[in-house]
Amino acid sequence: MGPLKNSLFEPVEKEIVLVEEGIEAVADVEYAWLAELLNYIVVSGGKRVRPALTLLSGKIDGHFDLEVIIPVAIGIELLHTATLVHDDTIDLSSRRRGKPTAASVWGGGIATLAGDYLFSKSAQMVSRANSVRADRLFAETLMALCTGELEQSFTSHSENQDRQTYFRIIGNKTAALFSMATEAGAVVTGAAEEAVLALRDYGYNLGMAFQIVDDILDFTADEKELGKPVASDLLQGNLTLPSIMLKERQPDDNPIRAIFENRDRERKLALAIEMIRNSEIVPACYRVAQDFTARACEALKIFPESPSKRALFELADYLIDRQQ
Amino acid sequence: MGPLKNSLFEPVEKEIVLVEEGIEAVADVEYAWLAELLNYIVVSGGKRVRPALTLLSGKIDGHFDLEVIIPVAIGIELLHTATLVHDDTIDLSSRRRGKPTAASVWGGGIATLAGDYLFSKSAQMVSRANSVRADRLFAETLMALCTGELEQSFTSHSENQDRQTYFRIIGNKTAALFSMATEAGAVVTGAAEEAVLALRDYGYNLGMAFQIVDDILDFTADEKELGKPVASDLLQGNLTLPSIMLKERQPDDNPIRAIFENRDRERKLALAIEMIRNSEIVPACYRVAQDFTARACEALKIFPESPSKRALFELADYLIDRQQ
Repeated sequence: MGPLKNSLFEPVEKEIVLVEEGIEAVADVEYAWLAELLNYIVVSGGKRVRPALTLLSGKIDGHFDLEVIIPVAIGIELLHTATLVHDDTIDLSSRRRGKPTAASVWGGGIATLAGDYLFSKSAQMVSRANSVRADRLFAETLMALCTGELEQSFTSHSENQDRQTYFRIIGNKTAALFSMATEAGAVVTGAAEEAVLALRDYGYNLGMAFQIVDDILDFTADEKELGKPVASDLLQGNLTLPSIMLKERQPDDNPIRAIFENRDRERKLALAIEMIRNSEIVPACYRVAQDFTARACEALKIFPESPSKRALFELADYLIDRQQ
Repeated sequence: MGPLKNSLFEPVEKEIVLVEEGIEAVADVEYAWLAELLNYIVVSGGKRVRPALTLLSGKIDGHFDLEVIIPVAIGIELLHTATLVHDDTIDLSSRRRGKPTAASVWGGGIATLAGDYLFSKSAQMVSRANSVRADRLFAETLMALCTGELEQSFTSHSENQDRQTYFRIIGNKTAALFSMATEAGAVVTGAAEEAVLALRDYGYNLGMAFQIVDDILDFTADEKELGKPVASDLLQGNLTLPSIMLKERQPDDNPIRAIFENRDRERKLALAIEMIRNSEIVPACYRVAQDFTARACEALKIFPESPSKRALFELADYLIDRQQ
């Protein structure tokens, strides 16, 4: 769908254009083979939610230095992109956002290296802010992302995956990056410590809600909307909030074990999807997500009214209501 | 063989122990499954040449702050380790330093994530020096490493690989990290700009020589010394200086094309190894390596005599003379 052009990002509309240009410029490299690979990956049609969070967070207090905030916002989107490339490579995913993944076009080896390259480019962009704190935040965020993905891999196909595991994993693999996006926006614009912590808190809770909604849509949307197969997490052995709730509600009468053990998988998967769709599970999951967005918005109460604050509020609603 | 305990690293003997302890401490994490994985990877028996370079470079001018230099030296070794983990995963290598690779024990997905985790740990360690310049150097070095590996992948199995390609690739994939090791040692100890540039120059040329010797040993050593199959680069479609010289000297009468096309591969590979071993190619390659170490040592002329300077000189000789 490309960058969100609607009113959500209005306070940073011009800056988002600069971020998009900066992201595309990553593919301006000497070697044609590398330019083609990078261009394929970075021009992805992503919504650019994370850099928008950085920009809105940077602007909420009024401070704003384009030379500093734009590279950081670009760096955060590239970090996100790099992790997607590695995730797709590891999961052997064939499609992302409706087009073949880099791994399925160039092979896993080159996709892994392209992800590494984007990590380095991301670190380089963040370092342009000349902030040791932002550089450290970058390193810690990457560490959280990897810990989350590793825990997901290690617990995959285990029926012991519960809410606690799930919240810890999505806290690391999704909320940490949202939280970095908002915290870095505050840090590099020299916001007061109280503002930094409030924006970090907002970002973290928004990220939790975002991931929960993603995991709901994985069951409720159709393959075309998702750009990938329905219930792909369950297929890969990962329980998310909807399937954990199914397991909680019907511990002895659910198709999860059969799916994990690859017994009659196609029919059992269809059954799991139906059981989740035709139950109170979906609204219950949305209530959990809304609890997180409520906490996110609560964190913003220290800021006076401003267009950026309003946009951050609206973004929370939008992320809950979205259909893809 | 473990950290070099001999006289080479004598001026920084105590600090090397601290680096080794810091590297092992990377595996001190909350989750047992992650601790086991990280411990397997970081306790590798590596020679720790790169952190020693950082320490010797930091000490050459007399300045030295342990709080600053030790984390940077650790970070550089972890960066090296992370790239090895990814290389082994991409190349499907089964053994490294005589033991199974992480990818062959845990699978490629987890090995990729473990490499990413070590990148983040490395960035975090470097950031402890509170030097934006060191952070930027980290990012640029990682970018060079990836560019080198990517170019190697893209040119693999092509008969157009020539000296120019080779020097560019090893400049990125090996010399950039040596050069970062020495440059960072100078930068974070507040050395004068002239000293920073001289040490960078030393590191770069030393790295070029180191890789050329590695590529010679790949043909002249036996499998036990190498801890991997002989001529593994050629098997993977990569021409290095010895095989490039073979192609230059006998453009129409060499087994490279047959090996690349998988025709009678085992016999042709043995033939290539014999042709390289029983010719003037090996001494000619050593002369190229020695040209680089001569340039490396030349760069040190601006420094007064000191134990660290002497150690850097001796290291250059050692890297040429080593048998593994």
